[in-house]
Amino acid sequence: MDAVGDAALLKTLSVGLDTVWVLFAAFLVFFMNLGFAMVESGLCRSKNAVNILAKNFIVFALASISFWVIGWGLMFGDGNPFVGIKNLFFANGGVDEGYSAISWTSVPFWAKFFFQLVFAGTAATIVSGAVAERIKLLSFIVFACALVAFMYPVTGHWIWGGGWLQSLGFWDFAGSTVVHSVGGWAALAGVIVLGPRIGKYRADGTVHPIMGHNMSMVTLGGLVLWFGWFGFNPGSTMAVGDGSAIAHIAVTTNTAAATAIVASTIVAWIMMGKPDLSMIINGALAGLVAITAGCAFVDVTGAAIIGLVAGTLVVFAVPFFDRLKFDDPVGALSVHLANGIWGTLAVGLFSIDGITGSATGNGLFYGGGTKLLGTQALGVVSVGAFTFAGALVIWLVIKATLGVRVSREEEIGGLDRGEHGSEAYAGFQIID
Amino acid sequence: MDAVGDAALLKTLSVGLDTVWVLFAAFLVFFMNLGFAMVESGLCRSKNAVNILAKNFIVFALASISFWVIGWGLMFGDGNPFVGIKNLFFANGGVDEGYSAISWTSVPFWAKFFFQLVFAGTAATIVSGAVAERIKLLSFIVFACALVAFMYPVTGHWIWGGGWLQSLGFWDFAGSTVVHSVGGWAALAGVIVLGPRIGKYRADGTVHPIMGHNMSMVTLGGLVLWFGWFGFNPGSTMAVGDGSAIAHIAVTTNTAAATAIVASTIVAWIMMGKPDLSMIINGALAGLVAITAGCAFVDVTGAAIIGLVAGTLVVFAVPFFDRLKFDDPVGALSVHLANGIWGTLAVGLFSIDGITGSATGNGLFYGGGTKLLGTQALGVVSVGAFTFAGALVIWLVIKATLGVRVSREEEIGGLDRGEHGSEAYAGFQIID
Amino acid sequence: MDAVGDAALLKTLSVGLDTVWVLFAAFLVFFMNLGFAMVESGLCRSKNAVNILAKNFIVFALASISFWVIGWGLMFGDGNPFVGIKNLFFANGGVDEGYSAISWTSVPFWAKFFFQLVFAGTAATIVSGAVAERIKLLSFIVFACALVAFMYPVTGHWIWGGGWLQSLGFWDFAGSTVVHSVGGWAALAGVIVLGPRIGKYRADGTVHPIMGHNMSMVTLGGLVLWFGWFGFNPGSTMAVGDGSAIAHIAVTTNTAAATAIVASTIVAWIMMGKPDLSMIINGALAGLVAITAGCAFVDVTGAAIIGLVAGTLVVFAVPFFDRLKFDDPVGALSVHLANGIWGTLAVGLFSIDGITGSATGNGLFYGGGTKLLGTQALGVVSVGAFTFAGALVIWLVIKATLGVRVSREEEIGGLDRGEHGSEAYAGFQIID
Repeated sequence: MDAVGDAALLKTLSVGLDTVWVLFAAFLVFFMNLGFAMVESGLCRSKNAVNILAKNFIVFALASISFWVIGWGLMFGDGNPFVGIKNLFFANGGVDEGYSAISWTSVPFWAKFFFQLVFAGTAATIVSGAVAERIKLLSFIVFACALVAFMYPVTGHWIWGGGWLQSLGFWDFAGSTVVHSVGGWAALAGVIVLGPRIGKYRADGTVHPIMGHNMSMVTLGGLVLWFGWFGFNPGSTMAVGDGSAIAHIAVTTNTAAATAIVASTIVAWIMMGKPDLSMIINGALAGLVAITAGCAFVDVTGAAIIGLVAGTLVVFAVPFFDRLKFDDPVGALSVHLANGIWGTLAVGLFSIDGITGSATGNGLFYGGGTKLLGTQALGVVSVGAFTFAGALVIWLVIKATLGVRVSREEEIGGLDRGEHGSEAYAGFQIID
Repeated sequence: MDAVGDAALLKTLSVGLDTVWVLFAAFLVFFMNLGFAMVESGLCRSKNAVNILAKNFIVFALASISFWVIGWGLMFGDGNPFVGIKNLFFANGGVDEGYSAISWTSVPFWAKFFFQLVFAGTAATIVSGAVAERIKLLSFIVFACALVAFMYPVTGHWIWGGGWLQSLGFWDFAGSTVVHSVGGWAALAGVIVLGPRIGKYRADGTVHPIMGHNMSMVTLGGLVLWFGWFGFNPGSTMAVGDGSAIAHIAVTTNTAAATAIVASTIVAWIMMGKPDLSMIINGALAGLVAITAGCAFVDVTGAAIIGLVAGTLVVFAVPFFDRLKFDDPVGALSVHLANGIWGTLAVGLFSIDGITGSATGNGLFYGGGTKLLGTQALGVVSVGAFTFAGALVIWLVIKATLGVRVSREEEIGGLDRGEHGSEAYAGFQIID
Repeated sequence: MDAVGDAALLKTLSVGLDTVWVLFAAFLVFFMNLGFAMVESGLCRSKNAVNILAKNFIVFALASISFWVIGWGLMFGDGNPFVGIKNLFFANGGVDEGYSAISWTSVPFWAKFFFQLVFAGTAATIVSGAVAERIKLLSFIVFACALVAFMYPVTGHWIWGGGWLQSLGFWDFAGSTVVHSVGGWAALAGVIVLGPRIGKYRADGTVHPIMGHNMSMVTLGGLVLWFGWFGFNPGSTMAVGDGSAIAHIAVTTNTAAATAIVASTIVAWIMMGKPDLSMIINGALAGLVAITAGCAFVDVTGAAIIGLVAGTLVVFAVPFFDRLKFDDPVGALSVHLANGIWGTLAVGLFSIDGITGSATGNGLFYGGGTKLLGTQALGVVSVGAFTFAGALVIWLVIKATLGVRVSREEEIGGLDRGEHGSEAYAGFQIID
């Protein structure tokens, strides 16, 4: 073999390795659909389980199609600071031209596309849990399509597609803002438009807890999500390089989840008198959401602190949203919105310049001053304002046309019978 | 390091990367056992859950042993166009000689073997669901061993082992025919020999639907299968090359699943008045089965159309088989047989010559005429005839010796008590 | 590109490939947490499900923190033959110095750390099942921390960290002893200190079987564990090399599981009159535990025999421990302790020197005499004595301070209400 042949083979190998890594990570992120389906349906009542499971299945299908048809182009197409305008439709048939913001990774076009697609699907799925147990199936489907086709790609373009926030030096490694808080803001708008479930907030001002029907499934879902996050965060390198960044990210990710569990367990134990399993699991997810933005920018100690705050925050966020009568059956707002914001700001506090190669500059606690923190806050506010306002408009349009909420009779009888004419656990004796 | 050392290291790296990829994909395919176990048991009644779960566990164990002892040799051993005859037993102790049909991939012998083994296990598992709720455990075990040891390897040899269909230019990239329709034909023979479950088809000609007991598990299983398919299809490259083929296949696979879900949801909604969850999930599986043959030969648009047809087909196939009184509790015939056939034929319609490097020629819709389509049809018919006839003989021999069907009392009381002396959900109050 | 550039790129690629492999395997091992959670809770009663699920979630979080704070340093820090003493705390902040026993793999520091961390977590999880349905949550948490922080690292240092057993030529490829029998010994001490569950052993000497509440989840857990084992064993190469060792290990691992299932199914069918699903699943796990030590040292035939013995052993071990009134709700002692010992000794019987490159020498059945077998036995005894004695002391200290066992009322009413104030399946009608 001569030197020229060697060089070509080296290049082939390098691209092959990057591709295997990115696709492996993408498959793990895809698998998070299972985690969301199990967490969300398990935390709701059995009479709505089929509906939630169906929603989760359909949403990823529609996200796959919407992101192919238009979403990818809006997000990564070359364009202006606000949105992509080039090669918008059908991912340009797989021809890798006009997507310069994502040309830094050497992997084949469809690997880039697929990795980004599974992320887009995640944002839609986050909404699903918050609006569960009273939303019309078709109305949710329409919203999810709009989110993945238009809303998610626009703010994604700002941050990952060469847009204005990216230019300003806003950093969000794997999507605390791009994915999680976007899903959270969209969910918040939906929760407000929908109103709470019947019986959740009593006339005397008390909150009536509505118990989930299957904590085994919730646990399963939580562990599947944690597992999937090892694709979400480490995979966001979108290339292998020398491997040390990937290993670093795996450990910061895992450490934040671990410390968040400890925090949420202890805080819930103190506040509620018992170690509540749903709080333990939401604690893990809170830590994972929070470390998503900074996993590549902070060290393991920073990750541990981010997780501790996240696990504490989620326990306080649940009653906070309840006081506002924002009824969120699965805690999606507390996990994805509150901690998506926290994780994004934490980049401004704990970043260590260049720790895995990114020129973030140092965060406030590492002598970098408030510059980075300010940019992060700007991103949080602008993405939040755009997504919340846009989602509110879409929800209100849907309300005015299709309607958003099932009838009182259907809600009480369960959406499984009302929307699907079936039940999740035929034969089992269940008293709601 | 000198040039010779470089070349050797390059070779080592290349083989290492291929091995990691193939094993990773094989592990995902192995994991599909979980998907099948959950889909199949969830769609049946709780009184038969232990039996179905036990079947799925044992079948993969026996497939592992059968394929090692004889199946691998019959499938990949050098031989005649009909069957392998060289180094038949115990995979030749791991010595990679006499398996020239699979020498095109550089991965170590045991990686080839293991990847093929998990495929063989899948074929047996497909049968499991169709014959559920009335088959004797031992009888099923014997059939599954015969299928993996003898039947599956023979038709596999025709198509992937250097046999006559491969020579004719029949293309089945990841096994719509080799795995899925073979499992489907074997299941069809079993369904006919067994007869329907008590109470399914009423004397007045109506079909009595028998509801599954756990749609959460069915959903879980469906998502696990989808996840596993990312090993099944992309992994069938059995090498990394430059990665672009793998990424292409991941996207065609996912797209077909997505469009199939949309089709099955809409068609079921129209036909049945409600979006039925089991149809949504079977739609996904139908799309995945259908794209399995052509995932490397069609473009994303082709995949989308193949999925749309698959999702529609599965909704019509279920009542079709019911009209014939072929009682298939989980829809395995509609998913694996009908769409295994469709996917194989679709290669003859949508193939684009060389799109990921395979010289398939163009399909009918891309100007290639009917040559490829004709060869695909010949493969469908010949594999179907051989497998259906062979399976029928085996089922009839088992019926005449061990018997195939549990007693009426056992079927009504449930196989869990009859065959296993246990129950799946101790303590839960269940009314069948 | 010149030769120097090529060499650097080759090195980068090689490290990158090793890293991707090790992390992929580590993620699979992490996923085993789900398997343990489902097997353990499914085999217990529904009234204790939340408690067991919570335990499994928290334990991995605490293991992650404990192993970071101190465990890693004790296990892999340079030191004396008994324990690591260098760079003990916080994994030395990620600086890879003073860990010479694990410097043989080229992967980045955090990849080594993370791979070892998920193993440490497994050991703690094994204990969880054996002490289920009567242990106080906090007491278990304290024990698990002590195990991962101090006990597991010490014996791990002996065998993998450059300690005295490693020097003597003791071989345990992926941890039949390091992980499984250590977990088993710790569990045994706990079982003895705790005493049996109320109602298990009757005054007339009979054993009252307490049925698991969800065999679907147990099956799910069993298949997830099997899947995870493909990370556990093949991943323990901790590098890719030319791939053939990894493929070899995947096949020995799978084959042992398969033959163990066949053995446990047949033996249970003969002894109990029925093929018992929990025995089938525990058979699979027994085979996997047993092949863990020798997966890289034996050939496929050796693996098949090791599995056959393991599957038989587990069926006899369950009543054996019951005769001793060691109440182990999930069979953890029979699976992890009995077969951890068997697998470690089997290395002394079936090893083939250098079969995947390790200089184990031949085992007794391959002409190597009893030297290797003797060393393996010494390791079994010394690790067992240390771990059992140490665990007993810790359990007794916990008993004397926090107490170990919930009240009689709480045990009868279920730990879910007593410890967590919740229930796993709200709405379902359940009679314990």
